[in-house]
Amino acid sequence: MDKYDGIVISSRVRLARNVEGIPFPKKLNDERAFSTIMKAGEDCAKDCFPYKFYQMAHLSTIDRQAIFERHLISRELAVNTKNGAVIISDSEDLSVMINEEDHYRIQAINKGFDLQDAYSRASDFDNVLAGRVKLAYSDKLGYLTSCPTNLGTGMRASVMVFLPALTFSGKINSIINSIQQLSLTVRGVYGEGSKAEGYTYQISNQVSLGQTEKEIIDNVTKVVDVVCEAEIEERKNLQSIEGVRLTDKIMRAYGTLTNAYVLSTAELLECASLVKLGMAFGLVRFDGDINGLIISCQPANLIKIAGKNLNADERDVFRAETVRKVLKKGNGGNV
Amino acid sequence: MDKYDGIVISSRVRLARNVEGIPFPKKLNDERAFSTIMKAGEDCAKDCFPYKFYQMAHLSTIDRQAIFERHLISRELAVNTKNGAVIISDSEDLSVMINEEDHYRIQAINKGFDLQDAYSRASDFDNVLAGRVKLAYSDKLGYLTSCPTNLGTGMRASVMVFLPALTFSGKINSIINSIQQLSLTVRGVYGEGSKAEGYTYQISNQVSLGQTEKEIIDNVTKVVDVVCEAEIEERKNLQSIEGVRLTDKIMRAYGTLTNAYVLSTAELLECASLVKLGMAFGLVRFDGDINGLIISCQPANLIKIAGKNLNADERDVFRAETVRKVLKKGNGGNV
Repeated sequence: MDKYDGIVISSRVRLARNVEGIPFPKKLNDERAFSTIMKAGEDCAKDCFPYKFYQMAHLSTIDRQAIFERHLISRELAVNTKNGAVIISDSEDLSVMINEEDHYRIQAINKGFDLQDAYSRASDFDNVLAGRVKLAYSDKLGYLTSCPTNLGTGMRASVMVFLPALTFSGKINSIINSIQQLSLTVRGVYGEGSKAEGYTYQISNQVSLGQTEKEIIDNVTKVVDVVCEAEIEERKNLQSIEGVRLTDKIMRAYGTLTNAYVLSTAELLECASLVKLGMAFGLVRFDGDINGLIISCQPANLIKIAGKNLNADERDVFRAETVRKVLKKGNGGNV
Repeated sequence: MDKYDGIVISSRVRLARNVEGIPFPKKLNDERAFSTIMKAGEDCAKDCFPYKFYQMAHLSTIDRQAIFERHLISRELAVNTKNGAVIISDSEDLSVMINEEDHYRIQAINKGFDLQDAYSRASDFDNVLAGRVKLAYSDKLGYLTSCPTNLGTGMRASVMVFLPALTFSGKINSIINSIQQLSLTVRGVYGEGSKAEGYTYQISNQVSLGQTEKEIIDNVTKVVDVVCEAEIEERKNLQSIEGVRLTDKIMRAYGTLTNAYVLSTAELLECASLVKLGMAFGLVRFDGDINGLIISCQPANLIKIAGKNLNADERDVFRAETVRKVLKKGNGGNV
């Protein structure tokens, strides 16, 4: 069990890379060049791990949405049905977005608090890529990227953290402020511009220039450490101040998830977040993957599981059924 | 199992009796006369069944409140600490209020739909009483009572019914109207002037003069029959119209009762009422006595169970704990 189990949800490292001599996707209007980029990406994957390769143009709206909901592609790539593509490792711990803002965006995910592991896996793919194509690189600026904020290492290291206590107490605001002064950034679950739903935040480096990869990882790790300690402290405060009212709130949420027959995405997220806090407090036992359950119950993923189209009302019923079943199967129970 | 199990909660018969030659309690100002009435009542009880005898003056406020909550005495008697008293059979299926509006109010309860049984037990006590004291009786008017509406048989036959479907659909209003035109009356759970909380109503005869006891019982029984059939029909409608939304509502209520850590009397009543409907629909299994649970969780009864004084906040916590335990012990479960 991780030290910050129940707080850190996952660690991610993303590397932005471009091929020398080919304009960035936004400026590119050459079908053959787009294809070359795709093919080189897929050829690398063949050397690395079992994978799936998808061109956005060949996927249904639901499929593209489902992959987005699972954090494997960005919202922008999901709608780029002209020349967007993605490589997804079978274990889904690595994906490479192709022809998004940059030619390649290599993204590795670790389901714990280990940026170094994510970095080393992203880096492995990067090395293979560098052996196949000449990457756009300047001795002065480092890797060249479409957006200047990604220049240098082209790296974004981010950690997804679950901070209900700091959110309830409102202390999260001053923490976000401090983090921003350290040139880090705090975002919602679905990246830039998204809200911090489910009391979940992404902490990542703001700039990628002028620091080594190791410095970036160390810096983000250090800040996440401090935030996690603050969350632990605040959870203790919360329990002593709110006491039975908080237990009541958590257990009612658990009662809703295990009994409701109609459940919206928003209510699931709200209740599941409280139940996660309840698990951390030892109030609720659940051996399954509750974060995975939340993702499975997003609209497009739910339709994929159902194997047929469902309208919003039908989804709410099927979501409730899925959640009831999973919570029962996962050895769930109020303690 | 009763035909109207899940609809009829209980049947009650009450007989009002007074001793000839002694003014009605309201007009009486003679300690010795009050004592005579009490003593005669208790002497009868000795001949009838194991019982407890309580003078209101000797009971704490909580004790008097608790007995009231259990429908064994009226709100009026509970506050009459001058000369009010009550005899309660150990099985609590018969109580005799002494020096309430009349000298004696004999009340027998049957936990099902059987007014005849309740009447015959009330009548047994009445016969013993008539052997000990000369009851105020006129050949023309029948039994003489403090309030003219009780003249004649001095009897009120009432059936407590649980009518959620008729309440939800609003059809209860026209039913109440029709019942009133048949010289019957519909009231809330705690008698005259009380609201129909928990979708529960008391149907009883309005007048006791000009009809025999048998006619009154037959009349009330017939009307309750019709109302129960209407409720059964309406439950079917409700299920077909509301479908999963109703199931959701019921199961969320069950989830609240089995998980909440803070529970008010009002929320318990609301949720338990939905769960009772869920039991009738086969959605929830519970082998215990849910109506008994609701009564045990009324404020004064809860304090009696706790064995110590509890303020309102403490009661809400203890109530939630009690309900969780009972529902688990009672082999409860969502089906």
